[in-house]
Amino acid sequence: MRIVVLAGGIGGARFLRGLKSAVPDADITVIGNTGDDIHLFGLKVCPDLDTVMYTLGGGIHEEQGWGRAGETFAVKEELAAYGVGPEWFGLGDRDFATHIVRTQMISAGYPLSAVTEALCDRWQPGVRLLPMTDDRVETHVLVDDPDGPPKGDAEGGGRKAIHFQEYWVRLRASLTAHAIVPVGAEQSKPAPGVLEAIAAADVILFPPSNPVVSIGTILAVPGIREAIADAGVPVVGLSPIVGGAPVRGMADKVLAAVGVEATADAVALHYGSGLLDGWLVDTVDTAAVPAVEEAGIRCRAVPLMMTDVDAAARMAAEALALAEEVRA
Amino acid sequence: MRIVVLAGGIGGARFLRGLKSAVPDADITVIGNTGDDIHLFGLKVCPDLDTVMYTLGGGIHEEQGWGRAGETFAVKEELAAYGVGPEWFGLGDRDFATHIVRTQMISAGYPLSAVTEALCDRWQPGVRLLPMTDDRVETHVLVDDPDGPPKGDAEGGGRKAIHFQEYWVRLRASLTAHAIVPVGAEQSKPAPGVLEAIAAADVILFPPSNPVVSIGTILAVPGIREAIADAGVPVVGLSPIVGGAPVRGMADKVLAAVGVEATADAVALHYGSGLLDGWLVDTVDTAAVPAVEEAGIRCRAVPLMMTDVDAAARMAAEALALAEEVRA
Repeated sequence: MRIVVLAGGIGGARFLRGLKSAVPDADITVIGNTGDDIHLFGLKVCPDLDTVMYTLGGGIHEEQGWGRAGETFAVKEELAAYGVGPEWFGLGDRDFATHIVRTQMISAGYPLSAVTEALCDRWQPGVRLLPMTDDRVETHVLVDDPDGPPKGDAEGGGRKAIHFQEYWVRLRASLTAHAIVPVGAEQSKPAPGVLEAIAAADVILFPPSNPVVSIGTILAVPGIREAIADAGVPVVGLSPIVGGAPVRGMADKVLAAVGVEATADAVALHYGSGLLDGWLVDTVDTAAVPAVEEAGIRCRAVPLMMTDVDAAARMAAEALALAEEVRA
Repeated sequence: MRIVVLAGGIGGARFLRGLKSAVPDADITVIGNTGDDIHLFGLKVCPDLDTVMYTLGGGIHEEQGWGRAGETFAVKEELAAYGVGPEWFGLGDRDFATHIVRTQMISAGYPLSAVTEALCDRWQPGVRLLPMTDDRVETHVLVDDPDGPPKGDAEGGGRKAIHFQEYWVRLRASLTAHAIVPVGAEQSKPAPGVLEAIAAADVILFPPSNPVVSIGTILAVPGIREAIADAGVPVVGLSPIVGGAPVRGMADKVLAAVGVEATADAVALHYGSGLLDGWLVDTVDTAAVPAVEEAGIRCRAVPLMMTDVDAAARMAAEALALAEEVRA
């Protein structure tokens, strides 16, 4: 069975670990979000790709969900001693090595897809991990700028665009997000293999990743959304919203920016029946099922808390079962 | 008193610490060798400048003489796990931060002299540390190439040029060095402040640094040798050779490449009376004094083992005393 999964960071990575456990023989291609990539200290950092790679390769910091197990922070502390930041982004020593290798290969002319493949040679994640694009796409968040010109002037002043990581990690999404802009997405092309994998898939899954800044960004790469809609195979997603709040992270803040309520059914309708064939909500959201089904998306309520690999595996099995139900 | 010191790595740095202790109020400018700079992992590494900076700034690994105290090697170990080397060059995590900051500034367009000043803002070495040049000079060593074409063919084959660090650190100078070539030196210019510092100096010192690949490389930057010869102030050196062998390192190997015997007097004559006014040899080399004096260089035999800061300070005081003797 060929499965294509669109993945952001922690939620996507943990779901993938469950999926591998549920169907060990499946041929899994992961299309990873690169919109939250950031250049720090002259190095190209790909947080979502690395979270997937480390999680599936056995190198992840389990409790934290991102970064490396047994990590140390000597480089970061020394950079701070030189007055070089940002200090709010937690790059550990082990993690630095990944970014150094990646940056060297990028500098040597390799596309990100080839670099990711080379890094995965070490980690052996057991899936084919593709960046959504080899082009530079950078998610920016439009926030109020207290130091800017007054709001509502002719230029739409009083607001400024900041890098997603600054919004998410430094500001902990504490400012109102007025818009989410995947800068460069319109001009980007899917990375080699992305459209081919979608066309060859037996099933396509949306893990409980952030629907705006993770899966939404992947879908913003021209050609990917269309390829998924046209693939003619079941497309099944899992709600990242449980009981009206994100399972983790601050997805509600960025959902508000795109005018979507933070509910399990609203997210399904945001994807829409043109894209989505099936949707899993948590058992606490059973009441949301009729609204989703009414919109033409088959919906089931099952436990959606990824407390461990087995729980994630059961979720993956439910998603695949729903896919078969859709197909039949 | 304005003192200019030409310095390589460990020997130069330890001498400078002694000099600062001997004359705490002196205005010291260090012209540092950059010929053994190397690009590793996409980062610009300046081993000699850093050894001076760390030693005078209190961050040096004392026993080792280079690198940082309390160093860890997580980045290097991770790079090796990715199969990325070289493994023979011991870059520690703390040290990496220095190279990351330097490389970022260089990439942003700052010359090495400005970068070095910025790094020294943190370390406060108590001297003005200048690279010999802002241009790229890279010392290569010509060695036999067992895999190359036969020796003595029309192209002069059978030999190859390797980076000084590969010769010194990886091969531990185990191959015969046929020539030492400071690639790029001919086209280089002294860094801003170098010629001005020499012209304004009251005394110029050559610490017991390597006369070929440290001080010799600095002198290979067009204009520096001439400025020293023309400064009209005492120029005093200290022999790095004691009892017919280098005090540390493998200076004898590179002296052979330039046809100079590894003796205290031969090194003095290699610099020559056109450059050098005074020369200190160790007390075990007292017999070498007459030959040096005969060549027109005032020479004294004093203890030259830098066993601790006090010993280095006494050596510095002897060098300054000899300078005054020359001046009188």
